[in-house]
Amino acid sequence: MATLRKLLMDTGIISLRSNGMFALLPLGERVMMKLTKLIDKEMSCIGAQRLSLPLLTSGDLWKKTGRWESTGQELLKIEDRHGKEYVLSPTHEEAITSLMSEIYPFSFRQLPLRLYQINSKFRDEMKPRFGLLRCREFIMKDLYTFDNSVEAAHDTYQEICSAYDRIFHRLRIPFLKVTGDCGSIGGTHSHEYHYISPTGEDTLCVCDNCGNSKNAELVSSDKSDSCDKCGSHVHQVAGIEVGHTFLLGTKYSKPLKALYQNESGKPELLQMGCYGIGVSRLLAASVEVLAEDKNIKWPWEIVPFKICLIGPKKGSKEASSALWVDHLAEVMSGMPGLLDEVVVDDRDRLTIGKRVMEAKQSGYPFIIVVGKRACEMVPMFELLDCTTGKSEFLSHKMLMNWVRELP
Amino acid sequence: MATLRKLLMDTGIISLRSNGMFALLPLGERVMMKLTKLIDKEMSCIGAQRLSLPLLTSGDLWKKTGRWESTGQELLKIEDRHGKEYVLSPTHEEAITSLMSEIYPFSFRQLPLRLYQINSKFRDEMKPRFGLLRCREFIMKDLYTFDNSVEAAHDTYQEICSAYDRIFHRLRIPFLKVTGDCGSIGGTHSHEYHYISPTGEDTLCVCDNCGNSKNAELVSSDKSDSCDKCGSHVHQVAGIEVGHTFLLGTKYSKPLKALYQNESGKPELLQMGCYGIGVSRLLAASVEVLAEDKNIKWPWEIVPFKICLIGPKKGSKEASSALWVDHLAEVMSGMPGLLDEVVVDDRDRLTIGKRVMEAKQSGYPFIIVVGKRACEMVPMFELLDCTTGKSEFLSHKMLMNWVRELP
Repeated sequence: MATLRKLLMDTGIISLRSNGMFALLPLGERVMMKLTKLIDKEMSCIGAQRLSLPLLTSGDLWKKTGRWESTGQELLKIEDRHGKEYVLSPTHEEAITSLMSEIYPFSFRQLPLRLYQINSKFRDEMKPRFGLLRCREFIMKDLYTFDNSVEAAHDTYQEICSAYDRIFHRLRIPFLKVTGDCGSIGGTHSHEYHYISPTGEDTLCVCDNCGNSKNAELVSSDKSDSCDKCGSHVHQVAGIEVGHTFLLGTKYSKPLKALYQNESGKPELLQMGCYGIGVSRLLAASVEVLAEDKNIKWPWEIVPFKICLIGPKKGSKEASSALWVDHLAEVMSGMPGLLDEVVVDDRDRLTIGKRVMEAKQSGYPFIIVVGKRACEMVPMFELLDCTTGKSEFLSHKMLMNWVRELP
Repeated sequence: MATLRKLLMDTGIISLRSNGMFALLPLGERVMMKLTKLIDKEMSCIGAQRLSLPLLTSGDLWKKTGRWESTGQELLKIEDRHGKEYVLSPTHEEAITSLMSEIYPFSFRQLPLRLYQINSKFRDEMKPRFGLLRCREFIMKDLYTFDNSVEAAHDTYQEICSAYDRIFHRLRIPFLKVTGDCGSIGGTHSHEYHYISPTGEDTLCVCDNCGNSKNAELVSSDKSDSCDKCGSHVHQVAGIEVGHTFLLGTKYSKPLKALYQNESGKPELLQMGCYGIGVSRLLAASVEVLAEDKNIKWPWEIVPFKICLIGPKKGSKEASSALWVDHLAEVMSGMPGLLDEVVVDDRDRLTIGKRVMEAKQSGYPFIIVVGKRACEMVPMFELLDCTTGKSEFLSHKMLMNWVRELP
């Protein structure tokens, strides 16, 4: 994974700023924006509303739930000038639950309620590793749900999991959903979404027959080779966790007194769920799983640019073809599906070869080279399809037809 | 301004979570998203690229520039488990300059470079006040520019100011641009963007004749009533600062050794500028300036929803007209300009009157009431235009014609 981290840094996706803390450079930021948009869409389909809670949460709330002490040294604590304590939030169960408790009285008719945010989270890892996969400041999407009964919360849990399935399907990277450990978040029910990768930190046990899958943490070592559902053989794979869902019950609503009014107008505890996606981790994990020959291969939905245009080297024989680059960039960027999706590598002191190599490394799915053959009577342009590895020369007309058919 | 803060809280735009720290609730988050989109567009026009720096900046960098000490108690400092010091960044000059210094060697040909971000900033205000106008955690847009000469940096400064002018013009709230104090950020040149408001914390001196304007901090008290450019009379107004631009020169590039290679290949210091917009403050300031009769009036570009639909009360005589609400919501949301811009107030246990009052308070520009007259042979719908205060009854056909003509 050292290679992966280097690849992300070499291609200008991220930059290490401090131990376990990365900047998202413009290309990385673009990927993150597309991931955010994809998540926003699916959240909107299930009626989830986006909000932003402060990144600092009052220490008192964390004391009430017991996590001020139990979370240990990963929790970054801070005191303000008046000596009041805060947590640099690694997650926001306390913050959202206290918000809900203040809204009371509020009616069962307003449930279910689904609120999420996409922002920075903090965790003071002892040993940050693997670039964006395990760092101390990262971007997380966290969704919290509120229901008026255990059954309704179960239904919500299923519905959110379906939305998560759709998000991961849209990225078109095979994933495994396994029963997870409730750990420090708590609750009665938990599932993890994993990308299968030899470099993953988690071990997953998958039944060869019925598909029943669990995090190895949940399996006692003497039963690790047979399925507890059907008894068939179980094999192990390594996974990178990219999402985690929890049915929380009243773990947080109880200590923080988050209530609603039931049909008889009486106060009752909210039934909660929480659902996370490691958005910056998803960026890195995608690269980890899909990269080939030290070249990034982005999922189509989150590629930073769909087309990279490369013109002739300055001072070369074919330098006059440079005009074509501006023309093609303008025409293509004007097409509905390609708005802001075309990047020109205008570093014309570098050879075409060097730039093509770097464009492949950066994972642009299509590279169009305007070189020697663009100076011919009938100008020809080279189209490199990095998704198949094929390349061909196309006339202007053929190129326009090709580009119009892009999804 | 206590009233303003209360208005924002009563309408569910924001919620106070801790002293000087607010949550942006779904309506507030929508306004923030629209502000972000508007800024992104103008930044893209001037070739500025978006990125994300970590919110924690190494304390060592702040020591190198001298701001670790000079910033005083507003700076929130934190130690990690290994005792390393960090700053919860109130601004990112140190962070971005150190990033640039690590990119070296890099050529004058790659300049100018313009990098910005929109994210959380922290300032431990002694006395947080006025809701989002002066708080301890807030959303800022910060842009940093890098040039290869003083002249080029000046040109950049003008170009960025023009982009800022366009951003503020698009919000259609009158603003005043005044010469500002370079203060703790430093540099040689600074301008502030202000909304004029009797409740503003800044005092601005404006010449009646030539328009020369300055923050009163820059004017010695004995010269405060005549213009230092044309000698004419100067009047004072109160303003809310919503943007601030600085020509920094080498204030940060020198201590942090941020260099580029000039035309002879020799290292030279980068000439820098920095440019901020208080995005969450802009939300609050807009409300402060435009609110009328305790009703919010949003600038059109950032209104959370353009149309609010209100149906009949449950159990009322006109309850059968409720079907029209779903129909109108579906048809209108399907129109290109209204995608995700129509909200239905479905709290049908409340009277129409109560909901209309709240919709006006929330600042929806158009309210459509489906009430008694929607049950007539030719159903009629009430359109309240909150931008003019007028209301009229329209048939379905007239309503559809009206909605198609919305900008």
